Amino acid sequence: MAKEGVFHFITESYLLDFRGRVTIPMIGNYLLHAASSHASERGFGYTDMTEKHTAWVLSRLALEMWDYPQMSEPITLYTWVGEVGRVFTERCFELQNAVGKPFGFARSIWAAIDLETRRPTLLDVEGLGVYQSGRLCPIEKPGKIPTVENEMPGTPFTVKYSDLDINGHLNSIKYMEHLLDLFDIRMFKEKEVHRFEIAYLAEGRYGMELEMHSTETDPNQYAMAICHEGKAICRAKVIWQ
Amino acid sequence: MAKEGVFHFITESYLLDFRGRVTIPMIGNYLLHAASSHASERGFGYTDMTEKHTAWVLSRLALEMWDYPQMSEPITLYTWVGEVGRVFTERCFELQNAVGKPFGFARSIWAAIDLETRRPTLLDVEGLGVYQSGRLCPIEKPGKIPTVENEMPGTPFTVKYSDLDINGHLNSIKYMEHLLDLFDIRMFKEKEVHRFEIAYLAEGRYGMELEMHSTETDPNQYAMAICHEGKAICRAKVIWQ
Repeated sequence: MAKEGVFHFITESYLLDFRGRVTIPMIGNYLLHAASSHASERGFGYTDMTEKHTAWVLSRLALEMWDYPQMSEPITLYTWVGEVGRVFTERCFELQNAVGKPFGFARSIWAAIDLETRRPTLLDVEGLGVYQSGRLCPIEKPGKIPTVENEMPGTPFTVKYSDLDINGHLNSIKYMEHLLDLFDIRMFKEKEVHRFEIAYLAEGRYGMELEMHSTETDPNQYAMAICHEGKAICRAKVIWQ
Repeated sequence: MAKEGVFHFITESYLLDFRGRVTIPMIGNYLLHAASSHASERGFGYTDMTEKHTAWVLSRLALEMWDYPQMSEPITLYTWVGEVGRVFTERCFELQNAVGKPFGFARSIWAAIDLETRRPTLLDVEGLGVYQSGRLCPIEKPGKIPTVENEMPGTPFTVKYSDLDINGHLNSIKYMEHLLDLFDIRMFKEKEVHRFEIAYLAEGRYGMELEMHSTETDPNQYAMAICHEGKAICRAKVIWQ
């Protein structure tokens, strides 16, 4: 089995945003599809993990986009295993357009949790290491995100049925969707998100009352947080250009 | 070109709900994918319509499900053109599981609008008629939905970036998502949606303040509406079992 996985997508009109462009949550879905398929095909997918009473949990994701595909554009997505540690493993992604030109990269950090205790378990460093690729991912790793939740009142949000994933927690793609919705539509008309970075800190559950925060820390740079009872369950950083 | 279109999907873990089942909005995405591809392959897709300064608009949809696929289940989706009128055309769908057993059907009614005036245009009855199939769709057509919006105060909702489609209007799948979110999680634990029916009456726009209503009209039957300034922009009917 090849170390790298290659996946093909074609953008679909009814999934594009009002500008006719692929959205960041949709790119997130493509990444998860590739991650999930790549892992399953190599024996460490959802089902393999469940058999060992464990599950993959996305801990951090950084995504950089230099262009956003439009209507009916083919996307080729490469994914490979990066650094493998005892608790966290890295998975990288490269997005290419129809002529093989890269237009985006992503780095993601995953942990495996025990399904009963919800605590991290030790990874099979050797097993995952087999699929480690030397391919370069030329974007910065997910880094530290400033705290913003004490500066101003947040936008309230309650976790609903459509927000839940198969584990009954706030779906990782839905965090992105709700965070991006905090920006006014004018931002999307005038600019593009160049870098989107997110750190998942705790699990959101059904009916949980959350507060969403966003602060411009530098020109075109926003630090964001989703909090429950004043404690962040997720932080994000968005750079517009 | 065959009259009927056949499409294949495999459910993906990160797109399932907390019960590990495919959601109605996700089925809606599959239907739209099939509709859009079937039409494009036969010369009356999104791009063909845009060239004539028109666009397809989904007017009504009725979906009946006897079962909901779980993890990694293959779905085969058939779609074909039903009745063709001067203003509305029908498109039907049949969902089959891995062994070819039908587990769901849908009937949808579409109009073509002029992109400038946003008014319906006359359909190419003969052109669409070529692809009409005699295949049966054994569920009731979308019917009349009772008015519910005067009975009780609605749940407020404001249209956000993630709700918008490529035309800048509230995405037809997002209506479904927001309506289903009105039901308490207990409903999803104890029952399944057997029939979901929706009528799109007006376009939702960015920032529009909406009110969502839901009333149990008969045991396990709900009439719903999404209103703007007291006027319904959408009605829906949901039958649980």
